[in-house]
Formats: sequence, structure tokens, C-alpha cells
Amino acid sequence: MTRLHVINPNTARAMTETIGRRARAVAGPHTRIEAITPASGPASIESHYDDALAAVGVLAEITAAPHADAYVIACFGDPGLHAARELAAGPVVGIAEAAMHTATLLGRTFSVVTTLARTAPHTRDLAEQYGFARALAGVHATGIAVLDLHHPPARRQIFDACAAALDRDGSDVLVLGCAGMADLADDLAEGLSVPVVEGVGAAVKLAEGLVGLGLRTGKRHEYAPPPPKPVTGLLAPYSLN
Amino acid sequence: MTRLHVINPNTARAMTETIGRRARAVAGPHTRIEAITPASGPASIESHYDDALAAVGVLAEITAAPHADAYVIACFGDPGLHAARELAAGPVVGIAEAAMHTATLLGRTFSVVTTLARTAPHTRDLAEQYGFARALAGVHATGIAVLDLHHPPARRQIFDACAAALDRDGSDVLVLGCAGMADLADDLAEGLSVPVVEGVGAAVKLAEGLVGLGLRTGKRHEYAPPPPKPVTGLLAPYSLN
Amino acid sequence: MTRLHVINPNTARAMTETIGRRARAVAGPHTRIEAITPASGPASIESHYDDALAAVGVLAEITAAPHADAYVIACFGDPGLHAARELAAGPVVGIAEAAMHTATLLGRTFSVVTTLARTAPHTRDLAEQYGFARALAGVHATGIAVLDLHHPPARRQIFDACAAALDRDGSDVLVLGCAGMADLADDLAEGLSVPVVEGVGAAVKLAEGLVGLGLRTGKRHEYAPPPPKPVTGLLAPYSLN
Amino acid sequence: MTRLHVINPNTARAMTETIGRRARAVAGPHTRIEAITPASGPASIESHYDDALAAVGVLAEITAAPHADAYVIACFGDPGLHAARELAAGPVVGIAEAAMHTATLLGRTFSVVTTLARTAPHTRDLAEQYGFARALAGVHATGIAVLDLHHPPARRQIFDACAAALDRDGSDVLVLGCAGMADLADDLAEGLSVPVVEGVGAAVKLAEGLVGLGLRTGKRHEYAPPPPKPVTGLLAPYSLN
Amino acid sequence: MTRLHVINPNTARAMTETIGRRARAVAGPHTRIEAITPASGPASIESHYDDALAAVGVLAEITAAPHADAYVIACFGDPGLHAARELAAGPVVGIAEAAMHTATLLGRTFSVVTTLARTAPHTRDLAEQYGFARALAGVHATGIAVLDLHHPPARRQIFDACAAALDRDGSDVLVLGCAGMADLADDLAEGLSVPVVEGVGAAVKLAEGLVGLGLRTGKRHEYAPPPPKPVTGLLAPYSLN
Amino acid sequence: MTRLHVINPNTARAMTETIGRRARAVAGPHTRIEAITPASGPASIESHYDDALAAVGVLAEITAAPHADAYVIACFGDPGLHAARELAAGPVVGIAEAAMHTATLLGRTFSVVTTLARTAPHTRDLAEQYGFARALAGVHATGIAVLDLHHPPARRQIFDACAAALDRDGSDVLVLGCAGMADLADDLAEGLSVPVVEGVGAAVKLAEGLVGLGLRTGKRHEYAPPPPKPVTGLLAPYSLN
Repeated sequence: MTRLHVINPNTARAMTETIGRRARAVAGPHTRIEAITPASGPASIESHYDDALAAVGVLAEITAAPHADAYVIACFGDPGLHAARELAAGPVVGIAEAAMHTATLLGRTFSVVTTLARTAPHTRDLAEQYGFARALAGVHATGIAVLDLHHPPARRQIFDACAAALDRDGSDVLVLGCAGMADLADDLAEGLSVPVVEGVGAAVKLAEGLVGLGLRTGKRHEYAPPPPKPVTGLLAPYSLN
Repeated sequence: MTRLHVINPNTARAMTETIGRRARAVAGPHTRIEAITPASGPASIESHYDDALAAVGVLAEITAAPHADAYVIACFGDPGLHAARELAAGPVVGIAEAAMHTATLLGRTFSVVTTLARTAPHTRDLAEQYGFARALAGVHATGIAVLDLHHPPARRQIFDACAAALDRDGSDVLVLGCAGMADLADDLAEGLSVPVVEGVGAAVKLAEGLVGLGLRTGKRHEYAPPPPKPVTGLLAPYSLN
Repeated sequence: MTRLHVINPNTARAMTETIGRRARAVAGPHTRIEAITPASGPASIESHYDDALAAVGVLAEITAAPHADAYVIACFGDPGLHAARELAAGPVVGIAEAAMHTATLLGRTFSVVTTLARTAPHTRDLAEQYGFARALAGVHATGIAVLDLHHPPARRQIFDACAAALDRDGSDVLVLGCAGMADLADDLAEGLSVPVVEGVGAAVKLAEGLVGLGLRTGKRHEYAPPPPKPVTGLLAPYSLN
Repeated sequence: MTRLHVINPNTARAMTETIGRRARAVAGPHTRIEAITPASGPASIESHYDDALAAVGVLAEITAAPHADAYVIACFGDPGLHAARELAAGPVVGIAEAAMHTATLLGRTFSVVTTLARTAPHTRDLAEQYGFARALAGVHATGIAVLDLHHPPARRQIFDACAAALDRDGSDVLVLGCAGMADLADDLAEGLSVPVVEGVGAAVKLAEGLVGLGLRTGKRHEYAPPPPKPVTGLLAPYSLN
Repeated sequence: MTRLHVINPNTARAMTETIGRRARAVAGPHTRIEAITPASGPASIESHYDDALAAVGVLAEITAAPHADAYVIACFGDPGLHAARELAAGPVVGIAEAAMHTATLLGRTFSVVTTLARTAPHTRDLAEQYGFARALAGVHATGIAVLDLHHPPARRQIFDACAAALDRDGSDVLVLGCAGMADLADDLAEGLSVPVVEGVGAAVKLAEGLVGLGLRTGKRHEYAPPPPKPVTGLLAPYSLN
Repeated sequence: MTRLHVINPNTARAMTETIGRRARAVAGPHTRIEAITPASGPASIESHYDDALAAVGVLAEITAAPHADAYVIACFGDPGLHAARELAAGPVVGIAEAAMHTATLLGRTFSVVTTLARTAPHTRDLAEQYGFARALAGVHATGIAVLDLHHPPARRQIFDACAAALDRDGSDVLVLGCAGMADLADDLAEGLSVPVVEGVGAAVKLAEGLVGLGLRTGKRHEYAPPPPKPVTGLLAPYSLN
């Protein structure tokens, strides 16, 4: 049995449920999904500020449950990914990372459709860092706030934004740029006749694959456990020893 | 049941067996691996010339069995990958591609240990094309010919080359640059205390993941089925209609 | 006397004639052009599948006539270029490569006008590999199939596509992205008042230049002759020894 | 009078003093330096984990004093830089960023000498993100922990590491890769006869320059103030409204 | 007292005055600005030809006054920058360089608005060389010749071009791509509500910063004083010894 | 008859003779080589300062003889190349450019062996600008001054440096990084058993090729004739009208 911790970095329980549902829908029969809402964090993640706070919330959940077989960080900004790799023995996969890896197995270029325009530079940074700058054909904002994604009119807007993005970019694959869109992938794929990749499912399958191969994060250098040291003030509970 | 065709692009049946064994060892319980030796092709792949011939051999095997759920091209040069994506409805994964995607989920940089030095530029080309040029810390040749990899002294040489490569490159992950090394991954990982990625296993898990997510190659542009047309001369059997 | 083998990688004799005519028109007085239609191959090259088949057809023509002074591969996808460099003692020039090198001697950026949109990613890959990614301002498809290029209305469409491409890209030079357009260069240049580079002529002059300098492919590593080995099945005639 | 808040992202008061001393030494006569130790954070920053915690500590200090003319984040990992730009009206400069900008005004390439080897990939990421990947000739670790930098033997080791780095990289400029080295710049420059850039001084001068020009962070897109929203749990004090 | 030589590389005295005014307006109280019109050079700089001539004019002004604390080359093409670094003991800053460094401290991407379209490739070359290719969102020509920038209708045209550039590029910061626009920065910033960076001011502050830190050009390799040697003909006065 | 002006940008007549000899040795029977020593310029080119002076000397020679069929700038720094393209109707080829284009037709990577180490960054800049950054495996200085290249012991040193460069870089092709080495190519090629490319010959053949194809510099944008304007002072003879 593979225990896979899927951490929603924001504190919106409804989104954790969406994420958990999607993760369970795609997981193999021997995978147990634990969908986790962090004890602390922002209600949604729409800025670098939110991202910084969320990273810290994610790390607490890894320290609190250090023996999962693998971890998924279920926000498209991959908050705390590098630090999580230091903390966890098992592999850690971010959903932006997962979606981009998966998309590039299906086509030469992909378009990302996301929530607010202000997050696009962060998406481009991640693509650059992961090696997918050339594959990323465009980032397209719907202007819908994360917590409004479940409103019925949002669905239509997202569909239209996806169609327009594919048209404009001439890309092969569509990537959904927010964990809150996880339950839209199948409907969109049908309507758009391109592969639609959403990161939660992609990350679950990549994590299962790594566990199946017995692979864990390389710990020789950058991702060795962090040197233990005191942390003071509000964050004192984060002290490691 | 997922039917996964793992095509060894060379015609060495012993290597097809090694590949098939590894593929079955890592495959999930609902995956049926078909390990295929092509009807035509070079005995091993150690040059661009071999690669060009092998590509054609691989394509025949896809046309001959067009209804598999997914395909793996099990040579580290990924011969025929783009053309295979045109032909096949289901996803196609090359083992160089798979190994590089997998390695970059486990560490920032990886070193490739391979057979002959003359293949290194092709590996670098693939890394560049797939987006992993920055992650590829080095390509290291053992000087062992593909069909000599199973000789007992070769094992020792490969181990030493891997240790030296990690040392020199300061990399996080080791990638085995030949399908003929597929059965060495576990032993090497133990001895080297870094993650060791070999492409056959990596490709099987990625292919299973794509099938599990219901994802197929994007067919809007580059990877649409090839326009049917006559082929004359020796290759006449390759005519499509 | 320089013997220059100009290989049309497809089997359309009419196109070989167009190519040969253009090659002879630009060749120096001491160059003898041999325009070659391969014994086997696809009728035209419009997909990765066609490209893979064509590569094999090209290689047979090099093995069959190993003592030419230089070789030109006259399809804009440069099929089999790296393998041809292994086989041939003399230099080998692809027409995409030649056109891009030539264009960048005449201006900072160039636009490519080609046949089908599906080939554009391959052109971008070549530009990336040869170093001209920054110089390539755009790839523009006319939607005309290769074998329809000689239809009279095609000429008009190509002219319009070229004018639109220059306009949109603001580029300095136009590159014709198909050997079948070889006879259009002069007319287009006159009408468009930019340099128009077509690859057959460009490759002939580059090949003559290399021969004139006594330069041949570097054979120390990647391009050493391919290791001889048996090839089985349909491709058995490709065995080297 | 320009009020410049120089935030030491770790909680080592001795390091805040070193930083403050250096900042005051280089600041103009009309600049008032406020050297700040955050209320919460790790004792030193030597991992992605420390970096994530420190970012949050830095952000609190900006929210607590939102009316400074400019801010410096005085850790070579630039923790929280993007989020700080969202929060602050005035410009924010990180010391890695500042050192790299400054070094590239003085020479074509620079070498970074830092503390622990595990931080080198983060430095490379920053160089890549800021545009200085080509200028960064090498990152060299001394193996000295941040809080041991003030031990007398450390000085010798750092000097030797700097000399070796310049030798190996053939670079024009040396960059000190830790705020704790801020007081070493002048001594090293004298001994090494190359420009030695340390980030605290560099950032103070860049920040003064921006203030002098009346320039502030662009707020149209990415760096607009973060959308206010509740933060729950331990981080609840970070709620904005 | 810091003596800062601000060299206008063209010979239009009115432009030297504009440049000098701007330099003095932003300079610190202890900086003395010497605004210099070269003894020889073109009336304005709008081509590579002008740039080559201007470079030589700039170099004479450095040789003529070798003891300034720092130098600014006040033309957006940075003519003669590398050679000036060889000649001068003190630091040398070009205004294109300065503007790009400054812009990237204020936002992720910037747009350049300039005079004639023909200079855009040179701006892109500089951005590539300095590391800001990814940050440069676009170069936009107004079509106004350098010496017409002070005509009243030009102001309106420039404002409109800036607004259109920001709109099209979605960038965070505006950069004025000609020293002749130095006096427009404040008005434009007010009207456009983005940071507007003009290079003269930016260069003055960077130069003051370098002097304040005691930093000079690295002289170990590329920027060592040029080997003395005879120069013959018209340029004989340029002989060094 | 093709009239090809080969301009030696320095004023050393002995070097002009070496260059002219090489140019004539490789030129076709219908090419007339005019080897030109500029009326003004530095005795040799070993710095950015020399390069700036030489550029101006080169441009005078183009203005003085505007009706050649093509021009070669015979210094490995390609001084004045972009400006020369503006001035000349016919194509202009620099020898660094020519050597790099030619080398990449013969192998994947090349090593440059040059005179003084201080020029290496300029060579890297050119490679970056022309698209050959990835192909450039290394730049290796012999430490021999340009005007000492003809001393007998220099030959041995150069040979040894070339052998060491090939060894260290593992490259396919050797490029001689100074016009003064033009007469060494054949001897070195024999001794080193790799293709040895020297730029004078390479540029002559590229220029002949362009002329043979009827191709000239694109003049729509960047390379249109420079706007005429007064030049004052020493450079007054450079005024265009």
C-alpha cells in the first residue's frame, strides 16, 4: 500500500475536497490518498505573499507526517517544493511541475490557463527553472479568483479562455493552472479535443511511479536534511533538532 | 488491463529479454507488457546511422500493432519518437526522455553514464530538445559496446564510471544511458547511494501514468496522423493509406 | 572537377529535376552536379514519419556512391544529416542548415515560409540545434502540399504568404522552407525586395566552399564511420562491414 | 533624509550588527540605516527550509514598518524578495541581486564564494532568474557554517577559497555569497587585487540610487499589493485587510 | 567630491545640455557632473555607422581626462563601453546598461521606447549581452529622429508610443531608449503610472554607488589597459604609449 | 569576375600580405582579390580599444571603394561588421563569423586557439551573437602577441596549444582565432588530424557563394544605408551625404 500525502497549501477545505476527490479518482488501487488541509495558511494563494505563507504551512505538514511514501504539493505555484524535498525522505512532487512534465510528454508546446494575471510571471519562472520555458507557449489569466472557481458561470469563462488560448498559442496541450480546476479536466478535454492536463492527477501518477521504482530524492547535496537549528518567535515550532 | 508495447529498437533478442524483464518487474498488476524485437533493424544502436535504421524498424512495429494503450521506445536515443507519436493513437514514451523527466523530479542535476563516447552529442541534443540542458551535468562514456554490457567485467567498469561521474559532476542523480543497463539500476543505487534512474522502468511508469489519466498525444498539429502517400522501393511496405 | 551529389530525399522525379536545375544554375564551372532520386522513399516529406523513411533512403545513396567530393541533402528537414556525416568522407550539407547559415550572413533575422503547418516544430528544432533560434523570426505555413507547389495558383499564394510573413515578423531575410520552392527564389526576391534564400542553391555554394578549402567532416568522435554490424530483416541491405 | 530598512532575515543579532555596520559605512550622509533583526526566524539560513522560514520573518518586518523609503533583504538567498515587492510601496533590493548587478558593471564574469555547498543551486537559480547565468563563472563553498564565519581561522579559509575561485574560474570579479561576510570585502579586495563585491553595501547603494531617482516598484501586475484575505492558524497575524 | 564625467557621444551641444541638466538634477550633493561634448563625432547616433564613429570620439574624452572618479557614456547604444573600461581606472557605466539594470530592480519585464526602428536590433544585442534578454519585453520605435525629439509634437507622440508599448507588452517598467529623452522621464511617469527609467539618471546613480563602495573595473583580464602600440593615419592621435 | 575586397583592419602590411596570399590561394578562378591595408588604424588588434579604432579604419575603406562585389573583414573580432553592412551594397563577411559558420558545418563543437587571453570574452560575445555559443567548446590563448605570430618558435607553441585545446575540449574542429594565423591552417590540419578552419579562407568562400547566388545584405531595417549627417572634428572626413 502506497501512502500518498496530497497537501493543499491553502486552508480552503472545499478545495482540499476537490483535490482529494481528483487524487482518488486517478490513484491506483494500492494507493491510499491522504488529502491534507494545513493547520495554518492563507485562504487561497494568489500572490507571492500568499505563496510564502503557504510554503511554511506545507512544511509543517511534512514534518508532522514524515513517513508517507510520497508527497504532492497541490498548488500550481509549487510552494515550498525545494524545502519539502530536504525534509521528506520520500519523493515530493509539485503540481505545476507535474503538469508541465506530463504535458511535454504529449506535445511540443502547452498553454496554461490560470486565475489571476498577476501569477503569470511566477508560472514562467517555474517553467524556466524546470526546463520548460521553450515548451510554455503562453499563460492566460481568466481573472477569476481562486475561491470563485466553483461558481457556475466560471466554468463557461474557463472553457472560453481555454479555447482562446489554444487558438492564440497554436499549442498542442492545455494545462490547468490552479488546483481548484482539478475537476474540470475531463469536461474540458471533451469540449476542446486536445489533451487537458491538470496537475493534481499528474502529480499523483508521477508520485506513484517514483514509489513504484523505489526512487527517492537525491540527498547528497542540496536536498540533504536541513541543518538543525533554533527558530525563534512565532515560528519557534519549526525548530528542528 | 493496460497493454503496453515496449519496443527494443535493436534486434538483439537478449536485450529485448533484459528490457522485458525490467519492464515487467516495475509494471503495475494491471499492465501487460509486450516486449518486442523489431522485424528489421541493426543489431545494436551506436551511431546516428544505427539510429536512423532503428527508427524505421520501430515504426513498423507501431503500424503492425496500432491498438496498444501505450508504447515505449527502449533505446536511449529515442529513435523514431516524433514519428511514432504521429502513428500511434496512444501515448509514446522514449526511455531517454523518461529517464530525464524522472531524474529531474529527484534532484537538480543528473549525470548520464553510457556506452560509446560518440553517442554523447546525441544525448545532449535530446536534453536540449526536452528542456533538460541545464539539468544535464555530464555525459560519461564507459567505452563498452552495447552488446558487451552483459560481460561480467563490464559491471565493474560501469560501477566505477558511475562513481567517477558523480564525483566529477557533483550531480544529484545518476541516469543509465543505455537500455542494456536496465538490470543494473538496483545494484548501482545500493552501491552509490544516489538515486539511479534507468529509462525502461521510468518509461513504463510514465506510460502507465498517462494511460491512467486518460491522456493521449495531442493531435491538432505536429502529431496528427501522417498524410498517406506512396513509398517506393525497399521501403514500399511503409506506404500508408 | 568537384563532384557534388545532390540527393532529393523524396522519390518525386519532377522535384529532383527542379532541384538539379537550381543546383546547376548556381554551381561553379568546375562543379558537376549529380541530382539523385533515391531508390526508395516516400513520394514527398510532410511528417516525421516521411522524414524517418527518407533518411534511410538518403543513406543508401551515400553508401552507393561513397566517393563524391561532397553531398547535399535537398529536403528542408535535413533528413539523415548526422548519419550521412558518419558515412561520407566528404562534407555533407543539409538545405535547411545551408539556408539558415546563409540567411544569417545577410540579416539579423529571417522568416521561413513553408508548406504544411505541421512541419514548423521540426524547423524550430533544427534552428535550435544549429544555433539560429534567436535569428528565426517565424515559420509560416502556406498550407500547400509539397507536390502541389508547382500548380500555378500556388505561386501567388506563396508570394502572398512571403509578403505577410515579412510584414508580421519584421525580419530582414526570407527563407524558402521546401526544396520544391527552389525555382521561386529569384522571382520572389524581385517582388519582395528582400534577400530570398532557398536552400538548394545555398547548400551547393557552401559545399563548393568546403571542398575548395579542402575541409571535410571532423571524424574524431561523433562522425567517425559507424561501427559495422549486421542489420536484419527488410533493412538487411544496410549492413555495413 | 532617506530611511532605509536593512532586514537581516535570520535572528542572529551579531550578524545584524555586522550588516548594520557595513550598511552605515557605505551609506550616504542623508541616509538613515535601520538594521532590523526579525521577531521570528531561524538562527541562520543554510537550506531551503531556513529560507522559507526566513521569508516569512522578513515579510512581517515590512508590514510592521510600511513607510520606509526602501528596503534591503540582507541574506544572499534573497528570501521573500518578490512578496516584499508586493507589500512595500518603496523599492526592495535583495543582496544577492544587488551583488550580481554590481559585479556585472565591473567585469564580464564573477565568482561567488559562499558558506555551505548545498546552497549553490539556489545561487544558480537566482543568477538564472536575474539574467546573470552567463556571468556567473562559479559558486565555491568554503564549508564554513554561517555562524562560524567570525571565527578567526575562517578568515584565512575564505581568503584561500577566494584566491582559488578566481584562479579556477578566470573571472573578473569576486562576490561574497553571505551577509555574514560583509565586513571582509575591503580586506579581501586588497589581498586579491580584484574588485570584491559584498551584497549589503551593493544593495544600500542601489536602494539609495532608486530613491534618489524617485523610482518605486512597478505595481501594475505582479507586484500589486497582495489581495487581502484571512490567514488561519499559527500564521494568523499575517492576515491582511 | 566625486567627479563624474558624463560623455554625450554625439556632438549636439543641445543634447549635452539636456544630459547635463538631468545628471545634475539626480546627482548627490557631493558629486560634480562634467557634461562633455566630444571633440569629434557624428551629430547624432542612429546607425551602427554613427555608433562606430561615436565610440572613437568617446575614447578620446577618456584619454584626455583619465582621472575622473567615474564615467558615464550617455547614448543608449553604449558606444565604446568595453574599450572605455580598458582605458579608465575608474568605473564606466553606459546608459543602456544602467537603464536595464535599474529597470530589472523594479519589475520583471520592461519595454523600451526609442527613436528609429533600425536601432532595435542593437538594443536587443545589448540586452542579450548584459543578461536582460528575458526581461526585455519589447523595443518600440517612435520613428522620431534623435535631433527632433525636442520638437513639441514629439512629446505627444512619445507619450502615445509609451502607452501603447506598455499595453502591448504587459510590462512592468518603461525604459526610455535615447539620451535625448532624459528630460521626459518625470512627466511620463506621472502620466503612465509605471516607473519610467531613463538611462542618464540611472547611470549617474550607479556610478555614484560604485564610487561610494570604492569599486573599480576588474583589470585582471579583458579590461586591463590596452597594449600600447602605434596608430597611423587619421587616427594617429589615438596612439598609446 | 567577382571583385572581393579583403580588408585587413590593422595597418601591418606584412599581415595584409599573409591575408592576401591566403585569400588568393583559396579563391575561385573568377575572383579578383584586393587585399587592403587601411589608411588609418592600429598596428595590431589586441583589445577593445584597438577594435574600436580598427572599425573606423575599415569603414573608410568601404566608403572609398563602394562598388566591390563583396567585402571581407579580416580580423577575428569582426570590427565594424554591422556598420559595414549598412555602408556596402554587396555582402560583408567577417572572418570570425565565417570561421564559426564553417566549423559548424563540419562538426558539432569547435575550439578556438587565439593570441592573447584578454580577447576571449569578445570571441564568446561574437559566438553568442551569431548563434554558436553552444558550439564553441573553448577559447584558448597562446599568449603570443599578434605581430609575433610569424616568429619561428611561435609555430610550435601554436601547434601545442591546438593539440591541448582539442584534448581538453573534446571538440570536432579547430578554429584559428587570428587572421595572422591564416597561413598555418594546412600544416596544422595535417598534424592534428582534425579539420582546421581559418577565417580568411572561410570568408572568401562564403563571400563568393553569396555573390554566386546574387544575394546581398537585407536593407529593409537595420542595415539600410546610414542616415547622412555631419561629423565634426578629427572624424569629419566620415561625414556622409
